[in-house]
Amino acid sequence: MAGSGSVDKDGPGSQSNFDVDYVIHYTIPPTETAEAEASFTQLIEALASAGFATEVRNGHKSSLLVFVKLASDRLLKSQVYRTRVQDWLYGVRAEAPAPPPDHDGKDLDEYYAHAEPVTEAERLRLAYLLITKPRNEGGAGITPRIGQWRFVKSVFPLHDRAFNRRWIKQWSTKYYLDDGDINLIRDRFGERVAFYFAFLQSYFAFLLFPAAFGFAAWLVLGQFSWFYAAVNCLWSVVFFEHWKMKEVDLAVQWGFKFERESVDPVTGEIVKVYSPYKRLARQLLQVPFAAACVVVLGGLIVSCFAIEIFITEVYNGPFKQYLTFLPTILLTVFMPTFTALLTNLAERLTEMENYETHDAHQASFVQKVFVLNFITSYLGIFLTAFVYVPFGKILVPYLDVFQLTAQRFTAEGKPLPTKSWQINPNRLTKQVIYFTVTAQVVNFATEVIVPYAKRKVFKTVEKVQSERSEKTMDQVKDSPEETEFLRRVMDEAELDEYDVTIDYREMVIQFGYLSLFSVVWPLTACSFLVNNWVEARSDAMKIAANSQRPIPWRADSIGPWLNALGFLSWLGSITSAALVYLFHACKDRADGSPWDIRGWALLLSILFAEHVYLVVQFVVRGIVRKLDSPGLQKEKAERFAMRKQLLERMAERDVSEETTGPGMSGGEKITREALEEETRRFWAVGGGRPEQLFWQRQRGAAETIQVGRSLIAEVSLPRDSKPSMGMLTL
Amino acid sequence: MAGSGSVDKDGPGSQSNFDVDYVIHYTIPPTETAEAEASFTQLIEALASAGFATEVRNGHKSSLLVFVKLASDRLLKSQVYRTRVQDWLYGVRAEAPAPPPDHDGKDLDEYYAHAEPVTEAERLRLAYLLITKPRNEGGAGITPRIGQWRFVKSVFPLHDRAFNRRWIKQWSTKYYLDDGDINLIRDRFGERVAFYFAFLQSYFAFLLFPAAFGFAAWLVLGQFSWFYAAVNCLWSVVFFEHWKMKEVDLAVQWGFKFERESVDPVTGEIVKVYSPYKRLARQLLQVPFAAACVVVLGGLIVSCFAIEIFITEVYNGPFKQYLTFLPTILLTVFMPTFTALLTNLAERLTEMENYETHDAHQASFVQKVFVLNFITSYLGIFLTAFVYVPFGKILVPYLDVFQLTAQRFTAEGKPLPTKSWQINPNRLTKQVIYFTVTAQVVNFATEVIVPYAKRKVFKTVEKVQSERSEKTMDQVKDSPEETEFLRRVMDEAELDEYDVTIDYREMVIQFGYLSLFSVVWPLTACSFLVNNWVEARSDAMKIAANSQRPIPWRADSIGPWLNALGFLSWLGSITSAALVYLFHACKDRADGSPWDIRGWALLLSILFAEHVYLVVQFVVRGIVRKLDSPGLQKEKAERFAMRKQLLERMAERDVSEETTGPGMSGGEKITREALEEETRRFWAVGGGRPEQLFWQRQRGAAETIQVGRSLIAEVSLPRDSKPSMGMLTL
Repeated sequence: MAGSGSVDKDGPGSQSNFDVDYVIHYTIPPTETAEAEASFTQLIEALASAGFATEVRNGHKSSLLVFVKLASDRLLKSQVYRTRVQDWLYGVRAEAPAPPPDHDGKDLDEYYAHAEPVTEAERLRLAYLLITKPRNEGGAGITPRIGQWRFVKSVFPLHDRAFNRRWIKQWSTKYYLDDGDINLIRDRFGERVAFYFAFLQSYFAFLLFPAAFGFAAWLVLGQFSWFYAAVNCLWSVVFFEHWKMKEVDLAVQWGFKFERESVDPVTGEIVKVYSPYKRLARQLLQVPFAAACVVVLGGLIVSCFAIEIFITEVYNGPFKQYLTFLPTILLTVFMPTFTALLTNLAERLTEMENYETHDAHQASFVQKVFVLNFITSYLGIFLTAFVYVPFGKILVPYLDVFQLTAQRFTAEGKPLPTKSWQINPNRLTKQVIYFTVTAQVVNFATEVIVPYAKRKVFKTVEKVQSERSEKTMDQVKDSPEETEFLRRVMDEAELDEYDVTIDYREMVIQFGYLSLFSVVWPLTACSFLVNNWVEARSDAMKIAANSQRPIPWRADSIGPWLNALGFLSWLGSITSAALVYLFHACKDRADGSPWDIRGWALLLSILFAEHVYLVVQFVVRGIVRKLDSPGLQKEKAERFAMRKQLLERMAERDVSEETTGPGMSGGEKITREALEEETRRFWAVGGGRPEQLFWQRQRGAAETIQVGRSLIAEVSLPRDSKPSMGMLTL
Repeated sequence: MAGSGSVDKDGPGSQSNFDVDYVIHYTIPPTETAEAEASFTQLIEALASAGFATEVRNGHKSSLLVFVKLASDRLLKSQVYRTRVQDWLYGVRAEAPAPPPDHDGKDLDEYYAHAEPVTEAERLRLAYLLITKPRNEGGAGITPRIGQWRFVKSVFPLHDRAFNRRWIKQWSTKYYLDDGDINLIRDRFGERVAFYFAFLQSYFAFLLFPAAFGFAAWLVLGQFSWFYAAVNCLWSVVFFEHWKMKEVDLAVQWGFKFERESVDPVTGEIVKVYSPYKRLARQLLQVPFAAACVVVLGGLIVSCFAIEIFITEVYNGPFKQYLTFLPTILLTVFMPTFTALLTNLAERLTEMENYETHDAHQASFVQKVFVLNFITSYLGIFLTAFVYVPFGKILVPYLDVFQLTAQRFTAEGKPLPTKSWQINPNRLTKQVIYFTVTAQVVNFATEVIVPYAKRKVFKTVEKVQSERSEKTMDQVKDSPEETEFLRRVMDEAELDEYDVTIDYREMVIQFGYLSLFSVVWPLTACSFLVNNWVEARSDAMKIAANSQRPIPWRADSIGPWLNALGFLSWLGSITSAALVYLFHACKDRADGSPWDIRGWALLLSILFAEHVYLVVQFVVRGIVRKLDSPGLQKEKAERFAMRKQLLERMAERDVSEETTGPGMSGGEKITREALEEETRRFWAVGGGRPEQLFWQRQRGAAETIQVGRSLIAEVSLPRDSKPSMGMLTL
């Protein structure tokens, strides 16, 4: 493994991981010690029989830390070989596999002499698979938190402190991440995490253009420029198609590519047999789910929106300065609650759909979560742009309902003081700026600073608590050189698991702002460019310091988020066209007086923009598909080489065969003996079938040539002198 | 081969093909006899060295007929084996190939004992490949009509008369073609032709629904019903998605499936290296090409349309009864000329684009041809529906331009008599009925009856001509039993090659009428149902009697036409919505008085219909994708079985390994000797690394369990009495 590099002043335990592959955090509920003890014995036995060495130490608060490592190098090697062959069988790898080694195992070592090295990620992945695979497949069959293993709270690998420190240090002093940086992530944290960073890097690089162009557009064109909208849409198409290509390229470069019909990576077989019709019926529940999201979240947002407009723009009575915060408070209280509730429901629905593979499950879940996030992120802006501004004059008078409600509670029942209302055309711009700048900063804070602070506070509290039992703890300390290490492991055991989905969601939603609304404020991309530079580093920080080391799963794409990106890019063509049409005339009128919105013109611009988008997408897709990527070229070359080799082997066979085949000088040579033999056989069969007779006219190629030449000669001769060459041979 | 079944009264030559695989039609231009002779010698030598037996006979009008058959059964078998292995290498076949046979060839026979039988199509395809493949790959390298082989007019297999007779007879007495019929076609004419018939059969079966529903709609709903339009669109989506599925299914059932990145089937290697950027630049020429099509054909159609309206609906002067035919005459004269010109241009453009594979070339060509056909087939109806009816009142007065032109040529220069004009609302219906009924009948006539009649006339003329030289010909006749056969071969040599593209085009364009305009006349599908029953039989007739037997190429889909179908299906959602909106109010007004067309309402209905279509398509696609087809299930099962077998073999290895691996009772057993040995080593290294120390605390699983259990016991014990169990092992 790693980490033995620099041993610093904190002693060996603070840097070295003692070759530990995984830590199993084993809790012992005081009420179930007997069961926990029995289960613990089974745990160690299962691990040992799967080929792990184990050590156990005392952990925090009634828990044990079981340290696990692959006992022998041979086991690792055999596992690596096995997975690679399996990959090849499932079409995941292109290379021809070495022939399976004999039972003496000598070939295994030979295989390793030529094979690619085993990365840390591969080792950890295989170890994890070995821990979790069913026992009949050679694993230990440990499924955390489920059934027999309910005391196993988590199974996690340990952070490599030295690497993490170097990693963060390097990234925070670097302007631009390159492929080498991504490959480093892949070797340490697996393809799933690496794919996220590759996406982030690609997105960041692509943002440079809209940031520069957006800045220029902001200076020259201003808001709501159709030219900006067109360029922005084109950019989003190019980015999307480029990423689709890049994704496949990375998967191929990283040496494997899942088949679409991929099976459960844990078991290697399709386990759950489930009627597709039944699943289909359950999937139909997505429709009421989406409806529920719209009603619950949409209702909340619309209400808050209406209240906010009433209070800030219509209401002019007492407590106005406090009441302004009412919608914010309502949103802050209810939104997380509702979102959590609906996310929970989404998870349950997805479980009911009972997918065969983890990937399919995840895809379905992400789809539902995306609906949720779409509403919470974009509905506010949609309301301002497409309801408040065009229909404000009609709808705002209805907000009197608040006034009437409020009047009931006031003593006198006299009308509340209001001010004359008119549409605030800057509202949209302000909102977009809020979401693209303020919200990103807030998000950064909640994602990185809050957990860090929380952990600090938590630890201080714990320290105070444990100081009382310090004396008793002291004697439990296993050995002085492990103290530091065990303290660190306990800390890591308390951390959250890293969920890459959350980071993807954030980026996809961000892409949505750019694609859907950046025509309102062309500086959007500049803000995102800065944000994403920080984002990449803060996500790295999050992995390195704020979460358990992720299990290095493989992945061949960013998965279901790709569809979300495509959807947002397409929707952007519609919203941009609509925004440009609705607001391009408005921007010059500071008073917000309504202008003449023509329904057919609005619809025509949407229709036109959308179809131009579809055509452009079709063309860009065609172009991108034709440009070979380096990874695909490499794969093609590899496949081609393999095929060529095998075919050449076959060709050799053919050559040796051809010498005995028919030919000019070969088997059909006309000799007197052969002719006599032929005649004898001919009469023996009794005249022969007509087919035989036909092919016996001209014996061999030489005769055919002879006859043919005389037939050709006839053409140049005058008709009358033609000899009957056809009869020549009978 | 075949045909030796029933020898009828005409003698053996009229039924038997004398085991001929291919006929090479070799022309001898009287001016180039010397070159022709030299080339002929090379031809026969090349064929012989590739393993063919040859016979030559005199043909029509200064030409030779070279008969070719695979000389040995062993050559065929080795070719079959070779292709199957190649298929497997290219991922075309799923089955694990038998291990390549040794050089003694005994395995080949063994392989055949278990392998699937060789169909006639496979034999013919391999023979053709062997004739055309380059010499360095073991073929004869004969490329008809090109360079060295410019005298080779064609290379074609012979029709199996007996089979053809049975085939046509069977189909003409059958209501419905089933999979067995399609498989028969596949075995005889290869997958490319079989795919066409499979598509036709599938389309025919699917037409039953819109025919029945359309009839009901015609009775109950009448024209321009939104309900009919919605059902029709839904049907086209279901049909399209079903066919996409069926296509893959068939490819898999037929035992192979091309990779998307397929290479030239003729050479097996990518031959043409060509910059994709250069190709892209040339592909951009498609834009001016499409523009040219629109201008040339569109201009012609618009002009004829305008003239027709002027003459039939405005003009009322002399010669009206003759002038009515003017637009028809103009179209009949210019349309085929222009189309031929543009098709030629399309072919040249496609050649300039210089594709790597025949498939890619064909796809690009079909795309261009589709643009042509789209204009010639649908533009007329589009003009009536979306220009003439809504804008007729505005545009028709401009038709006075014809009047003014005509006035110049009349003596007196007095205005031509006209009648008062009003929109003819039945024009659209009449036009749709014309295209869906009359045009189909006309098409049938030009496709089947005309070539047949032409051939009859041609033959009679030829007979008269050759009767004069009968006496001289008589002595050239090779042998009496071959006379009939040779006459037949000469006839077949004169036939056209069968081009499946033309038949596909017809069906796709037909599907377009149904999808785009059937809302105008709901009986459309009924007409097509009848037409397609005949079409399948007439296409069979065309293959059997009116063209050379097609070379049995493989195919894994209907190719580029799939995109055309998808496009038409999508466009149907737009035109149907527009037609319903524009005409639903009109149908009740016989006088054609204009009604209030609102732009926004028209656009809204289009926008709405299109997006409903896209959502429905998304859903249907999702559903269809989830329903496994029998072919895919079979393939999955096969792949799974293969993998399982191989993995089990590996698992056996593992079991034998595990017994020597670590475990409860295995290698880590603690014995006094082992401990002593360990201690000796420990001190020898100089205290050992911390990592070693860490893993030496608990020696083996048994000790870990022991320590763990005591740690668990601590939890239930009071804090003070805890023993330090961690130290137990040092």
